[in-house]
Amino acid sequence: MDIASLIGVILALGLIFSSIALGSAPFAAFIDIPSFLVVVGGAVAAALICFPFGSMLRSPIVILKVFLNKSEDRLALIKQIVDLAETARRDGLLALESKVAGIENPLVRTGIQMAVDGSTPDVVEEVLRTEVEAICARHREGKGIMDQMGRFAPAYGMIGTLMGLIMMLQDMSDPSGIGAGMAIALITTLYGAIIANVFFSPFAEKLGLMSRKEMISLEIAIRGVMAIQSGESPRAISQKLRTFLPPKQRNAE
Amino acid sequence: MDIASLIGVILALGLIFSSIALGSAPFAAFIDIPSFLVVVGGAVAAALICFPFGSMLRSPIVILKVFLNKSEDRLALIKQIVDLAETARRDGLLALESKVAGIENPLVRTGIQMAVDGSTPDVVEEVLRTEVEAICARHREGKGIMDQMGRFAPAYGMIGTLMGLIMMLQDMSDPSGIGAGMAIALITTLYGAIIANVFFSPFAEKLGLMSRKEMISLEIAIRGVMAIQSGESPRAISQKLRTFLPPKQRNAE
Amino acid sequence: MDIASLIGVILALGLIFSSIALGSAPFAAFIDIPSFLVVVGGAVAAALICFPFGSMLRSPIVILKVFLNKSEDRLALIKQIVDLAETARRDGLLALESKVAGIENPLVRTGIQMAVDGSTPDVVEEVLRTEVEAICARHREGKGIMDQMGRFAPAYGMIGTLMGLIMMLQDMSDPSGIGAGMAIALITTLYGAIIANVFFSPFAEKLGLMSRKEMISLEIAIRGVMAIQSGESPRAISQKLRTFLPPKQRNAE
Amino acid sequence: MDIASLIGVILALGLIFSSIALGSAPFAAFIDIPSFLVVVGGAVAAALICFPFGSMLRSPIVILKVFLNKSEDRLALIKQIVDLAETARRDGLLALESKVAGIENPLVRTGIQMAVDGSTPDVVEEVLRTEVEAICARHREGKGIMDQMGRFAPAYGMIGTLMGLIMMLQDMSDPSGIGAGMAIALITTLYGAIIANVFFSPFAEKLGLMSRKEMISLEIAIRGVMAIQSGESPRAISQKLRTFLPPKQRNAE
Amino acid sequence: MDIASLIGVILALGLIFSSIALGSAPFAAFIDIPSFLVVVGGAVAAALICFPFGSMLRSPIVILKVFLNKSEDRLALIKQIVDLAETARRDGLLALESKVAGIENPLVRTGIQMAVDGSTPDVVEEVLRTEVEAICARHREGKGIMDQMGRFAPAYGMIGTLMGLIMMLQDMSDPSGIGAGMAIALITTLYGAIIANVFFSPFAEKLGLMSRKEMISLEIAIRGVMAIQSGESPRAISQKLRTFLPPKQRNAE
Repeated sequence: MDIASLIGVILALGLIFSSIALGSAPFAAFIDIPSFLVVVGGAVAAALICFPFGSMLRSPIVILKVFLNKSEDRLALIKQIVDLAETARRDGLLALESKVAGIENPLVRTGIQMAVDGSTPDVVEEVLRTEVEAICARHREGKGIMDQMGRFAPAYGMIGTLMGLIMMLQDMSDPSGIGAGMAIALITTLYGAIIANVFFSPFAEKLGLMSRKEMISLEIAIRGVMAIQSGESPRAISQKLRTFLPPKQRNAE
Repeated sequence: MDIASLIGVILALGLIFSSIALGSAPFAAFIDIPSFLVVVGGAVAAALICFPFGSMLRSPIVILKVFLNKSEDRLALIKQIVDLAETARRDGLLALESKVAGIENPLVRTGIQMAVDGSTPDVVEEVLRTEVEAICARHREGKGIMDQMGRFAPAYGMIGTLMGLIMMLQDMSDPSGIGAGMAIALITTLYGAIIANVFFSPFAEKLGLMSRKEMISLEIAIRGVMAIQSGESPRAISQKLRTFLPPKQRNAE
Repeated sequence: MDIASLIGVILALGLIFSSIALGSAPFAAFIDIPSFLVVVGGAVAAALICFPFGSMLRSPIVILKVFLNKSEDRLALIKQIVDLAETARRDGLLALESKVAGIENPLVRTGIQMAVDGSTPDVVEEVLRTEVEAICARHREGKGIMDQMGRFAPAYGMIGTLMGLIMMLQDMSDPSGIGAGMAIALITTLYGAIIANVFFSPFAEKLGLMSRKEMISLEIAIRGVMAIQSGESPRAISQKLRTFLPPKQRNAE
Repeated sequence: MDIASLIGVILALGLIFSSIALGSAPFAAFIDIPSFLVVVGGAVAAALICFPFGSMLRSPIVILKVFLNKSEDRLALIKQIVDLAETARRDGLLALESKVAGIENPLVRTGIQMAVDGSTPDVVEEVLRTEVEAICARHREGKGIMDQMGRFAPAYGMIGTLMGLIMMLQDMSDPSGIGAGMAIALITTLYGAIIANVFFSPFAEKLGLMSRKEMISLEIAIRGVMAIQSGESPRAISQKLRTFLPPKQRNAE
Repeated sequence: MDIASLIGVILALGLIFSSIALGSAPFAAFIDIPSFLVVVGGAVAAALICFPFGSMLRSPIVILKVFLNKSEDRLALIKQIVDLAETARRDGLLALESKVAGIENPLVRTGIQMAVDGSTPDVVEEVLRTEVEAICARHREGKGIMDQMGRFAPAYGMIGTLMGLIMMLQDMSDPSGIGAGMAIALITTLYGAIIANVFFSPFAEKLGLMSRKEMISLEIAIRGVMAIQSGESPRAISQKLRTFLPPKQRNAE
């Protein structure tokens, strides 16, 4: 599990809170519930307009994925593929039937099942690539929600600030109130900037990176299945797939 | 029907109105008809310059589509294609002639009609792909109008604010009027930000998403027609097309 | 002729002028010739640096094209191509020689002339595609000039405003002059925003759209010529090319 | 030689200087050497971080190219290629050996030399395309330096203004000095905007356009060499290459 | 070693420090440790959210690479490849086995080793291209960290300034403190701008350029290995690969 994202969020919030604590103003000066509702609610509302309900409901899970992203064990995946290739080499493709249920990687499982069922390599590859395309589209939608939240949070922050300024300008009779009014107006912009730059924009970036990495694992799975079906030697398959590993891992047992 | 967009618009406007209601300024302070005309009228005018009249007249329908977007029933589409494939397998391609009129999906209907009429697969595919390209161009234009409205609304908001500031600066003799003048100047910027971030920018985003999803259904239709024409078995067609469904739906009856 | 662009410009200017007329400040407060020269002259100067003289001289014609864009009559083009195909079918390709001079569409004329002269289909297609690429490059340059004008006008507006502010700040001895000085400083920003958002940015957008539409007509012409040369039946050609028409027009006589 | 760029720079600077001359403030109010150093020096420094020393040293030559860009004589290039093709047709490819030294265009020279030396067409094309790719990379780097200067100049202008504002705010005891302090602070932003919008951004745009045009000449050269080597008739080569000329030039002697 | 980057950083910082030294305010006015922590810490925190821990730990090495980027000796690489080609020509591919250990370039080493081991050219090329893709992904991640730091530093600068303004506005009782409060608020924006424009943005640009150049060397290596394996003559290989050199170096011994 990579906890860099968690450390990052804690560090960013820690810096912001401690610099408020070090400042002269009381902590309460930075808290304004209606402002918070306009910014967070506005960003959520805008995202609801952009994305279907189902995708929005799944977005907390997407955020959880940012924090819990377990690093992919490509080596184990390659080992399992090579293992399957050895069985196929020794006992024929049909011998893999009994092993299908035990394959963890869904793409490999689907591919091997199809190969055992007698689908031609072309069909197997087409089905697997369509599947990868669908996974990629789901990732893009998850990242898209974060991107839009990171874009709409500052926009609603600005809307809140403009409303605050207009209210303040309506009533300039009491000069001592101007400063406080302006401070409250600025709080929505601050909230928008924090929400975008501590949460959603970095989350979107991370999801993009995670997706690109998962795509490589999926590519390994597809190439592995295709190689097994075409009867390549386990040693050749291992060599080919290990190219996807970083150099250090490549010669691991 | 996916009502997320409707909920989103209501939520966004609700937040804005209630935060005005909670504020100290009267509601009237946020209403200025000329400002509204400059921002909305300006955005519409700029879009009129960009797009042909016909497309502009169709844009309310495009907006309606955002709210009424019925989720595509890909499973039903696949079932119908498989059904047609079974008839073709059993009774020959020509037997589909009697069924053409009953096909709902226009792309499948055109394709099957052409196949029955004896067009070669190459020609059928070319015609269907040109059709999809034309649909895609119409979607792009609809999304383009929303994108431009979402871009010009804040621009005309800024133009209005600059005009308001220049007016205010002309007459600084009465200091008490400065605040009110500035408030009115800022209202166009507020309107521009609200119009862009509650309506047009999220609409454009949604239309892009809807278009990408419809493209997948169109791809299913094209691949289905091609598979029927090339005489693939209904079972193989079903397997291939179901790859486009989310995993849960894939094994549905 | 599509007059949407003309209506758009009139509407946008009308809104701006009437909101000035409704305001408290005299009309003269919004007129400052030197400011106008800095913004328009600056944008023209910057575009002159970017583009060759000849292209700049042609740009008024490009702007005229935005207003006079006559909708392409694709149906007539297809009919003429089908007509040529019928002659070629009946009397042979060489029979088209007498008709070449009467072909309006320059691309079709060039292509048929080459076919009659005995060029191979490969050469004909290469020549026509190079021609289309050249047309596309000319369109891109025309759109590019509008894009750059729409980008440099606000930039020179900001330069003017900064110069105005620096002048004003030099002489703060007379407080009553500050407002007027600032108003004049802001006028260049206003001019820049109006010039970009009423004229050049929407013009660039429109030119892009017009170019994409013309590209489709050019594609029809190329495919038509290729089909005639390869001796396809007029009926097949008609069917193939009509796919490029919107569904309603497709079955027109 | 196209002097549009020179006229553009003179026009832009003329407008700026004359609008200062027309203003109330003395010319000296717009001159501040340290501000100028921060903006220009900062932009140069940032570009030095981005690009290797050699590329930076060549950038004055790149700027000179913007002003001196002689229009490419594509017609002459085509004529020379057709001339070579005639010799090759009449006396064989080897007869070109004596003419190689007299070929001005380096790409044509390299290609013909290789053809004479007996390289296969595949190798010749690969070598010429790699060469074009390298030229394109050099152009991209030259344009990149201008782009970055046009991006960093305003950034360092803003850095200078922020430093100026902080200095001014330190010492608000003398209200009469505030205006002057602020004026000086704004000068760096003005310098940054002028440097970016009069010089580097338009230069980058122009270089991009020039590069795209040169690419077409290089394409003519490659296609000409390939056609000569494959023994096409001079007339066919002339017809094919003239497609790259604007219609008016196409039938020139 | 190209020290342009080092000179650039020193020049940029020198300009900033000397323009502070020339100014009226004491140097201390520009130092505020909490502000520095918010900006740098915030940018690091945001990058931590975006990127895995391992990549973040490697980023100082990436920055070092910007300063120490030794120019690639493509000529030496080509000479070694030609040398290997000569051995292969003379004594057969297997004769390269003894030389593998002495090959510096890891891509050439891997490729030759595979060729000697009897892998087919297709497999060798696939493995080498996958390797290059992995190197490219690592470069993209390194550049990505710099890009994000250069984007988040100004964002956290703005967050700091907003917090400072809100604090200042809370306490407007003492007018003399307003200037100082505002100065401190602006310092975070200044820090953000400096950190982005002196360090991370130019670093990202440089890394992109370095990566593009390294890609060319890797392409030389791949093409060289493929040419050796397919038994091309050393002279032809030399000619082909030297096309990747700048013209001046091409005829070097």
